[in-house]
Amino acid sequence: MSDGDVSYARTPRTTPTRYKDRATWEQAAIHAILDSTYLCHLGFVADGAPVVLPTIFARVGDRLYIHGSTGSRPLRGAKGDQGLPVCVTVTLVDALVLTKSAFNHSVNFRSVVAHGTAHQVTDPVELSVALDALVDQAVPGRSAEVRPANAKELAATAVVRLDLDEVSAKTRADGADDDEADLDLPYWSGVVPVTTGYGAPVPDASATVPLPAHLRDLTR
Amino acid sequence: MSDGDVSYARTPRTTPTRYKDRATWEQAAIHAILDSTYLCHLGFVADGAPVVLPTIFARVGDRLYIHGSTGSRPLRGAKGDQGLPVCVTVTLVDALVLTKSAFNHSVNFRSVVAHGTAHQVTDPVELSVALDALVDQAVPGRSAEVRPANAKELAATAVVRLDLDEVSAKTRADGADDDEADLDLPYWSGVVPVTTGYGAPVPDASATVPLPAHLRDLTR
Repeated sequence: MSDGDVSYARTPRTTPTRYKDRATWEQAAIHAILDSTYLCHLGFVADGAPVVLPTIFARVGDRLYIHGSTGSRPLRGAKGDQGLPVCVTVTLVDALVLTKSAFNHSVNFRSVVAHGTAHQVTDPVELSVALDALVDQAVPGRSAEVRPANAKELAATAVVRLDLDEVSAKTRADGADDDEADLDLPYWSGVVPVTTGYGAPVPDASATVPLPAHLRDLTR
Repeated sequence: MSDGDVSYARTPRTTPTRYKDRATWEQAAIHAILDSTYLCHLGFVADGAPVVLPTIFARVGDRLYIHGSTGSRPLRGAKGDQGLPVCVTVTLVDALVLTKSAFNHSVNFRSVVAHGTAHQVTDPVELSVALDALVDQAVPGRSAEVRPANAKELAATAVVRLDLDEVSAKTRADGADDDEADLDLPYWSGVVPVTTGYGAPVPDASATVPLPAHLRDLTR
């Protein structure tokens, strides 16, 4: 089996109830989606109710590191040996898909949903690796050109680890899918690409070096 | 009290444990963030574990309508009189904030987190309003220039309603915040704007009318 064929195991909760043809468990496809961004939504249960917080993550191999800065609540739960049941979801929108009927409108997207138990990273070496990875996930190469975290900062950094195990991706990458009976209606239909990018970097007054290569690469 | 001063009530779970100065409960600020996008992350609890799914939403007054197409699981829970406890989170990233230390890196963002009990929309009139709002949230004005949903389509549309009540926003809109001791380090620091926009619309073969004004407005 080649690397491209490696897949995560399917479970009931990673098997969608609808649009099953949009789902994949293939490791390479899932990693590619995760590596296209740095923003995730972290879900957990607090006092029996769901909580969803945005935060940043990094992928290192088959592991996600998730930054806890959006609130200390999830981190408290992830401190013990039991860990914290979480759902981590990553979503990229690629296009609006506009049809002649309101009903058939859709969105082209790529998403990953990972279920599992998160544990707080306490080992200083792993924490240092995770913090570098969090910086590099958004700006590849940057962690080598900043001051690394010192012991005090590492102790103040809250990161949880989630092993990728029960995980799937869903994607839609297609055109407008109108009903046959609607095709002659006098309305516009088609795809509107959604674009994301970077504006020109704005240096801080303290930036005394020219724009480094890792930012020229990112923003060109 | 002017409209701009209307705020949602604070509760323990809409009061952040960290960075309290970044939080607001002001209705106008929360609505403005919600109205800047159409993508949300819907969190709920299934078999005791958290689930977070991406989907689209629309705001109509103090109410969110959330499309259930990402899976029927949450919708089943929202069908009964009891409804389904949910957390709906909306996040916009505005910039990467890069500092001279790895530790002080940050993100400029705007986010809204709404807690409550979602109920499935079953009334055909409300469902029709919700479906139009879902189309218009992404492309203002479009619902008037498509074929409206018929009875069969409305019956097949899964939408849940969440009243905005226990809701807050968090924002960061600031520059690089380095430690005094790091300011002279020979590294770049500053802000990299994150941009989102639209590419040129790609008409479907069946699009027999020119690009309508609602799409010229959106994509210019």
